Amino acid sequence: MTDSTALLTDRYEYTMVDAAIQAGTAERQSVFEVFGRRLSGGRRYGVVAGTGRLLQAVADFRLTDDELSWLSDEHIVRRPTLDWLADYRFTGRITGYQEGEIYFPGSPILVVEGTFAECVLLETVLLSVLNYDSAVATAAARVVSAASGRPVAEMGSRRTGEWSAVAAARAAWIAGFSATSNLEAGRRWGVPTMGTAAHAFTLLHDTEEEAFRAQVAALGTGTTLLVDTFDVPTAVRRAVEVAGPELGAVRIDSGDLASQVAEVRAQLDSLGATKTRITVTSDLDEYSVASLSSSPVDAYGVGTSVVTGSGYPAAGMVYKLVAHQDDQGEWVSVAKKSSGGKSSVGGRKHAFRRLSDSGVARAEVLRIEEHGSDSHPAPKHAERALHVTLAEGGVPDPRWLGPEGTKLAREHHAAAMAELPPDAFRLSGGDPVLPTVYK
Amino acid sequence: MTDSTALLTDRYEYTMVDAAIQAGTAERQSVFEVFGRRLSGGRRYGVVAGTGRLLQAVADFRLTDDELSWLSDEHIVRRPTLDWLADYRFTGRITGYQEGEIYFPGSPILVVEGTFAECVLLETVLLSVLNYDSAVATAAARVVSAASGRPVAEMGSRRTGEWSAVAAARAAWIAGFSATSNLEAGRRWGVPTMGTAAHAFTLLHDTEEEAFRAQVAALGTGTTLLVDTFDVPTAVRRAVEVAGPELGAVRIDSGDLASQVAEVRAQLDSLGATKTRITVTSDLDEYSVASLSSSPVDAYGVGTSVVTGSGYPAAGMVYKLVAHQDDQGEWVSVAKKSSGGKSSVGGRKHAFRRLSDSGVARAEVLRIEEHGSDSHPAPKHAERALHVTLAEGGVPDPRWLGPEGTKLAREHHAAAMAELPPDAFRLSGGDPVLPTVYK
Repeated sequence: MTDSTALLTDRYEYTMVDAAIQAGTAERQSVFEVFGRRLSGGRRYGVVAGTGRLLQAVADFRLTDDELSWLSDEHIVRRPTLDWLADYRFTGRITGYQEGEIYFPGSPILVVEGTFAECVLLETVLLSVLNYDSAVATAAARVVSAASGRPVAEMGSRRTGEWSAVAAARAAWIAGFSATSNLEAGRRWGVPTMGTAAHAFTLLHDTEEEAFRAQVAALGTGTTLLVDTFDVPTAVRRAVEVAGPELGAVRIDSGDLASQVAEVRAQLDSLGATKTRITVTSDLDEYSVASLSSSPVDAYGVGTSVVTGSGYPAAGMVYKLVAHQDDQGEWVSVAKKSSGGKSSVGGRKHAFRRLSDSGVARAEVLRIEEHGSDSHPAPKHAERALHVTLAEGGVPDPRWLGPEGTKLAREHHAAAMAELPPDAFRLSGGDPVLPTVYK
Repeated sequence: MTDSTALLTDRYEYTMVDAAIQAGTAERQSVFEVFGRRLSGGRRYGVVAGTGRLLQAVADFRLTDDELSWLSDEHIVRRPTLDWLADYRFTGRITGYQEGEIYFPGSPILVVEGTFAECVLLETVLLSVLNYDSAVATAAARVVSAASGRPVAEMGSRRTGEWSAVAAARAAWIAGFSATSNLEAGRRWGVPTMGTAAHAFTLLHDTEEEAFRAQVAALGTGTTLLVDTFDVPTAVRRAVEVAGPELGAVRIDSGDLASQVAEVRAQLDSLGATKTRITVTSDLDEYSVASLSSSPVDAYGVGTSVVTGSGYPAAGMVYKLVAHQDDQGEWVSVAKKSSGGKSSVGGRKHAFRRLSDSGVARAEVLRIEEHGSDSHPAPKHAERALHVTLAEGGVPDPRWLGPEGTKLAREHHAAAMAELPPDAFRLSGGDPVLPTVYK
């Protein structure tokens, strides 16, 4: 693993810079925007995540000598471009939606300004981070609302790439999960970590009882015992015998959860373990979590579905040039005009969320900037400006970075969710809960 | 980014080790197996990928001082466990399917042997790598067969986590893709890289013609020009005017591909550019690639679908304890017995592919080892043994590592695919093309 993020990118970013340097167009001031054309899967809203990570990726986008040598050996770019790359660091400005914010089709989630060459190089890594992290956060937010206040832990590390797992744990926490099983997410991003035990631990020991005794001896009676390795009622009885009625929790990872949970609750209560919680973890997603809402479940563990975006593992955001200066320094708005739903809207956008008098979100309002004019579009009455400055002169604002930035994103997410109208929380597919309007 | 992989794991792996050390069971010799209970999405076969990466992850699983301090500060494990972890390195044996091999439900893809503690710690990171890389390789193999010999390039880096993108490029190449857009995959794993240009490059220039001239000047007439930014017929005419009939290729990224491709081919031919190739890249998956089989497409670029496993982004493999020694040194086969389709089969398995006289694969044959006996199950007539030694004494066999190992995996994949019966290449959902039998 390397600290540099400079080659986590598509070859064409480098060859476009190479061609633009030769053509004399590489230094044209440009504006790129990141947006999603639609919300995947008929989702009612999307959640922006990855901002803190992508700002770090921008700061780490410096070419090492090894990377430069490889680009040279492979003849990917020519000598003048290699010289330019050797000194590369992004010096432009990044504004965008605060991490944790809600977004809708067309929302200008990120605005990247600088020369064409310095901005275009960042395309792939910015999109990789935003598309994955936002897909996870969007799925996670749906699970959280389906859980109706019960805690949900992210346990999906084994179901996604090993570094994506760290990002997923972070994104799920921003979207309201209570904890993760992923230790690196704890160390790197300050996400609270949790864990229970696996079937292997029970199977290692000569009896289930010995396994429970070993776990309670090491982790205390507050631990969570896994009760479905052999026979659930037998295991629940043993668990309470071993740990006493102060046993923290039992975990069920298989079977018909609704009936099992009811039976285990009754059995725990009959054994006097009325405060022992029940955690369920078997291939849950937002729909199965919702279906357990009338069961006496105390906590959920969600794995595969959240780290894979619950059917939509990439958020579908794109990075598009919307304006640039020409040789006379005049700004030109640009857009792809072609067929197939892939056209874009030229010009730099500013974004606002219009709220009702009682603070309920009503619309996503976009205004296109008149480049060169002094007056930037400003929020009107009952509008909240959605863009914040993320990096200036190429330097990320430290507020958004590291564990503190992650915590801030989680708080901002909760506040933004609280503005949404009730229809946002319908799990069924449909239209975005807010319209995106240009005005 | 850190070189250590030790915290890319679930907290419970560490707390199970903690409890087992205290209980005196941590050093019991154990056998864990990785297998998939089913093939996702009614796929006819699965493709093993990630082996070369996971062996590197095992070698890099050493706790740094920072990691140990964090585990201590967070009170995740106790002092004796921290001392044990400070010296941790895996010393056991790993056997398994050669990377690129085909697998079926129940195939023992990886067999990890050592003490319980040293093996259980590896669970999460091994599964993260195998589940993601195999999901990508399985999707990629289907695209390759749908493309019927036409080259397919992987271009999905922006649609998955930034490090998963590197792994995906590698997995897709193993499964028969011809190249990737991802530069780090080129540098790290020796995957051939390729690229064209983005709409932004056309939009940056004052006219499409200027953009084409700039690209051809830098990259030569063999380059691929993107012709769908404005009007396709106009762009095709300009492209041939600028580059001449020796133009390498044009790329179409939107619209109704079947009709566009036919029109562009006719236009290119009428302009004398009969050797100019047509590359298409618009949200393709195995089904849309197959539907273009009668179109004069020369090459495909596939992004989102391949890096997200074409609807199945995790292969669903699990890591299960199947045998361990007891305090008397006797081997005990173990298995989870619970309900809900999550039971497992105890005992260490050996795997063979039964072939017909003409070399066509007929069955996945598994035999359970009598632990302690000297005779290991051996291949019978017309069977191919599927397990190879991947690591011995904790040290990965260098054959499987790096660019050379990746190339070997690609070659092995092609050979294993050539054994499959024709039904394997049906894209529709159905049963695995080979039965898995215990005998």
